[in-house]
Amino acid sequence: MKNLLLLFSLIFFISCNESAENNKETQNPEAEKTVSNDSVPNFGIVIHGGAGTIRKENMSDSLEQAYKEKLEEAIRTGHEILANGGTALEAVQRTINVMENSPLFNSAKGAVFTNEGKNELDASIMDGETLNAGAVAGVTNVKNPINLAYEVMVNSDHVLLSGKGAEQFAKEQGLEIVDPSYFYTEKRYKAMERAREREKEENNKTAFYDPFIKDEKFGTVGCAALDKHGNIAAGTSTGGMSNKKYNRIGDSPIIGAGTYANNKTCAVSSTGWGEYFIRGVVAYDISAMMEYKGLSLQEAASEVIQKKLPALGGDGGIIAIDHDGNVAMEFNTAGMYRATMNKNGELKIGMYSK
Amino acid sequence: MKNLLLLFSLIFFISCNESAENNKETQNPEAEKTVSNDSVPNFGIVIHGGAGTIRKENMSDSLEQAYKEKLEEAIRTGHEILANGGTALEAVQRTINVMENSPLFNSAKGAVFTNEGKNELDASIMDGETLNAGAVAGVTNVKNPINLAYEVMVNSDHVLLSGKGAEQFAKEQGLEIVDPSYFYTEKRYKAMERAREREKEENNKTAFYDPFIKDEKFGTVGCAALDKHGNIAAGTSTGGMSNKKYNRIGDSPIIGAGTYANNKTCAVSSTGWGEYFIRGVVAYDISAMMEYKGLSLQEAASEVIQKKLPALGGDGGIIAIDHDGNVAMEFNTAGMYRATMNKNGELKIGMYSK
Repeated sequence: MKNLLLLFSLIFFISCNESAENNKETQNPEAEKTVSNDSVPNFGIVIHGGAGTIRKENMSDSLEQAYKEKLEEAIRTGHEILANGGTALEAVQRTINVMENSPLFNSAKGAVFTNEGKNELDASIMDGETLNAGAVAGVTNVKNPINLAYEVMVNSDHVLLSGKGAEQFAKEQGLEIVDPSYFYTEKRYKAMERAREREKEENNKTAFYDPFIKDEKFGTVGCAALDKHGNIAAGTSTGGMSNKKYNRIGDSPIIGAGTYANNKTCAVSSTGWGEYFIRGVVAYDISAMMEYKGLSLQEAASEVIQKKLPALGGDGGIIAIDHDGNVAMEFNTAGMYRATMNKNGELKIGMYSK
Repeated sequence: MKNLLLLFSLIFFISCNESAENNKETQNPEAEKTVSNDSVPNFGIVIHGGAGTIRKENMSDSLEQAYKEKLEEAIRTGHEILANGGTALEAVQRTINVMENSPLFNSAKGAVFTNEGKNELDASIMDGETLNAGAVAGVTNVKNPINLAYEVMVNSDHVLLSGKGAEQFAKEQGLEIVDPSYFYTEKRYKAMERAREREKEENNKTAFYDPFIKDEKFGTVGCAALDKHGNIAAGTSTGGMSNKKYNRIGDSPIIGAGTYANNKTCAVSSTGWGEYFIRGVVAYDISAMMEYKGLSLQEAASEVIQKKLPALGGDGGIIAIDHDGNVAMEFNTAGMYRATMNKNGELKIGMYSK
């Protein structure tokens, strides 16, 4: 009997030690603290920096590193806000601001150029608690369009403002206005010039379907978050499509297509070929499948992105978080810049296909 | 026994005659022909001319008559196209054109004025067969914005064009361009002036919630149709909100909010307080409830308009037709200009609450 007790104690000791080793491998010290306290409310955050033909073989080590660092900086910004008890709405805004201020993404600072050589910016944000929402389309001088979308949501009677009127509202709200030249980056300007050239060669028709140009329009950024108060929110910010004409508006400022959030279900931000995301009402469709069909977030995201969207002819991806903190990062392109971080501080960063 | 037979014959004769009389009252001669032939494929059409505080006691007999006549002219235009084997898309466009060309509705010719004294027009159309869609926002010189939305759908790679760019595209497509003064109507201009005055009095804040101004922004027109080929389509056209600022875009050009069509489920056009229709993704929500929850069109429309929309704080209505030709005309305001006509030529016109 004594021997048996000793044996059990030994087994117990070994297995405890193994468990501790595993924890060290996957979690940072801060995470261990939160793991040991189950009473800490759940929270989490997930971001994307655009989906497209993102392949390891086309990426230099230094560029890959730059993307990874910026994704990590962005997501840690929002995670810290959430860890400190801040709101999902604030985390979404500040996280997106980091990506908006980087030339790496097709959003604000790194926005692509229109056919007329301008940068037209779109953004939207939605509050899953109140179902309130704000969005802007075609602004040219607002440093952080996601902040303007937020102001539209909380300080106007409207959901969607556009062009000069949206800029006037930005000024009245005291947002940071920049000279349009702030959005100039040589890389994006050259991309627009190449797109123009191709369009001439191809008789104005195929440029939109040119794989090169298609990828140039990717790079939209987005974020979805769950805060400790149990509220979720999502936001999206983009420079639209390289060489775009006719004041085209994509899915990013469209509630239900580019952005959707509802505490009942999930918060979603889309990236990809906007026209198909509008026709598929992609962000809301994921929520509707959860609410009406009882699908999990992952099941709904997979159904919409891997089946319904390609059936229409569209491609791209979404990131989303549900009211329980489950996360989806689903795309049908070669890659999607993405990252997620949970309440334990576990960080995952990805760029290429799974 | 003979007497009894005579009595039965007499009863039979009287009841048959009554039935024939009833038919005469409700159906036109052409309809009787279609009734006698069950092999004629089903088709139907439904329209709205806006929802709001439409009450018998506020309406002169002559104005009521004018609305009835225009609604009938509009719906007969589309019905004839459908009866002759035309497409739902064509019926939707031509029906809406009749209302766009009338000063009675807040759409094209009768559009309300913005705060800057301009008329900014929005429209959208969706094809339930292909899920293709086209929309325009903020155009100022296109006589029939629904036709421009159609051109965007079939002759561009885009779904939503706006402002000057959309006007440039209209010109390239050879659509009828008019001087912006074409959209001037004294009634609407005075409404905008009254709205401005009220805004001054109320310190810029409450005008949007002023019942008078709220109703001034209603009057959007829309149509949904099922054609003999089994395809459905929907379209919406509006002048937006009286005294609107900041290039506000409402729900009318937003696929999923103002317009949605899918052969699997239904075709919907919305009218009302656009901000709430965007946040509720109203048009697509009705379709999603049919597809994912198995609700009938009427059940889904009632759930969304009578429960979900008021819970958000919004009001307005929708018209819709499903793939079997069932029609819904649902609103939570005092009235909605509306009409429907089925394959038998049965016409129903309504303005006030049911």
